[in-house]
Amino acid sequence: MDSNAPIGVFDSGVGGLTVMREIMRQIPNERIVYFGDTARVPYGSKSRETVIRYSRQIIRFLRTQEVKAIVVACNTASAYALDEIEGEMEIPIIGVVKPGAKAASGVTRNGKIGVIGTEATIGSRIYTRYIKEINENAEVVGKACPLFVPLVEEGLLHDPVTDEIAMRYLGSLIDIGIDTLILGCTHYPLIRSAVAKVVGENVTLVNPAYETAKELRELLEKENMLNPVRPELGTNQYQFFVSDAAEKFIRFANSIIKYGVLSAKIIHIEEY
Amino acid sequence: MDSNAPIGVFDSGVGGLTVMREIMRQIPNERIVYFGDTARVPYGSKSRETVIRYSRQIIRFLRTQEVKAIVVACNTASAYALDEIEGEMEIPIIGVVKPGAKAASGVTRNGKIGVIGTEATIGSRIYTRYIKEINENAEVVGKACPLFVPLVEEGLLHDPVTDEIAMRYLGSLIDIGIDTLILGCTHYPLIRSAVAKVVGENVTLVNPAYETAKELRELLEKENMLNPVRPELGTNQYQFFVSDAAEKFIRFANSIIKYGVLSAKIIHIEEY
Repeated sequence: MDSNAPIGVFDSGVGGLTVMREIMRQIPNERIVYFGDTARVPYGSKSRETVIRYSRQIIRFLRTQEVKAIVVACNTASAYALDEIEGEMEIPIIGVVKPGAKAASGVTRNGKIGVIGTEATIGSRIYTRYIKEINENAEVVGKACPLFVPLVEEGLLHDPVTDEIAMRYLGSLIDIGIDTLILGCTHYPLIRSAVAKVVGENVTLVNPAYETAKELRELLEKENMLNPVRPELGTNQYQFFVSDAAEKFIRFANSIIKYGVLSAKIIHIEEY
Repeated sequence: MDSNAPIGVFDSGVGGLTVMREIMRQIPNERIVYFGDTARVPYGSKSRETVIRYSRQIIRFLRTQEVKAIVVACNTASAYALDEIEGEMEIPIIGVVKPGAKAASGVTRNGKIGVIGTEATIGSRIYTRYIKEINENAEVVGKACPLFVPLVEEGLLHDPVTDEIAMRYLGSLIDIGIDTLILGCTHYPLIRSAVAKVVGENVTLVNPAYETAKELRELLEKENMLNPVRPELGTNQYQFFVSDAAEKFIRFANSIIKYGVLSAKIIHIEEY
């Protein structure tokens, strides 16, 4: 596989851009092809079967772009589809859940770890499973926070309503004394400050996006697949594809990543 | 066409059940086949092209159920797809927008009408167009309320957070002195009381679900297609199909309609 080939990153919509942002920071030489499934977003309330079917279609599309590795930058797809799909691939594929679980296991002092995410991610109990593999005595408590994504997408990042909702969602986690909290949905780093205010400074927030980019770098290094030089300007280092509503995607993308996202191509993902 | 044939009703998810509920109340003899596109919900943030494509697939599915008429019980699909699709049909098809616009035009005294709905519905300016056809002097002001659907789906029907968000969304409509407000999304009748509290008793709320059921009854009557007798118990008067997550749909359905919804069949809608 050509080390100059791009990395494929996908998400149900825009949230995965927080993962892409970390990859851009940590391994700036890499080319990236991002796909956001904006025609079928959100995944967090959908069933396992559907999320697996959608993920398979997206991977088939990314393969047409000749990617050298794939990052499932969506907690729900990582939770539901990764185990199923991993075995079918000849190129490396990593999700955001395992790196997040590993980091949280390393950081906790009292073994009490909270996880927040979509209904699907929390219902799958996948963070619990991975954390218990590392530390079987850990106590992991999940809490679904369905309103966080719409609040972020409405732009209420610093707002009393978001604070109030955060208070309600996180109250039970504080009560049981967690010392570590996994931001188990790619939108959540964007309301990190609201979450931090509620849980207080004694709780360490773990951002799986950061951990995933780190794991990706290590993996590419080990396989000798890191791109040695940064692509020249004008060679499309970063490309964006969506299944719908490209204009809206571009606006949101430019608010998340510090790179002038000028265009996003629409593709009919159900044909893959 | 057999007057005993069912009516097809579809929506992006569960919201259209408020329309189905009105049809059940107003024409209780009718059989109904409901389809909720739970694998691709919501439509309100998606593009016109995508919503048209999805609506066509659903209509093809409903035709396999030999429906005698179709109700587009989704404001977004009515706004984007109905004009496009109407001409292709040999059976009657009605949406929720026209009946809502008609009712609001009849009710307003000062000619100032507010419309709330999804981004797509408001962006399409379809309510404005229909109202102006009836009363060209009317002043129609739309306001997208993207958080209302997630708030309803989270069950916060009577909650200070919903009141606060309603206040922010509706403030500008109150300021310009509307005397009529169209609840232009099928979820909104479920937070009718929060909306009413904010706009006050001098503003008449128009529920397109009610108006649509009324128009459907009149249409079937005119065409001599009303079912003369109520189907016997055990003959599946009401049938439910979804594209995903049937269990969750059933729970929500039972909270909206007073009919024991016991099952919902999952179909792969993208194959139609």
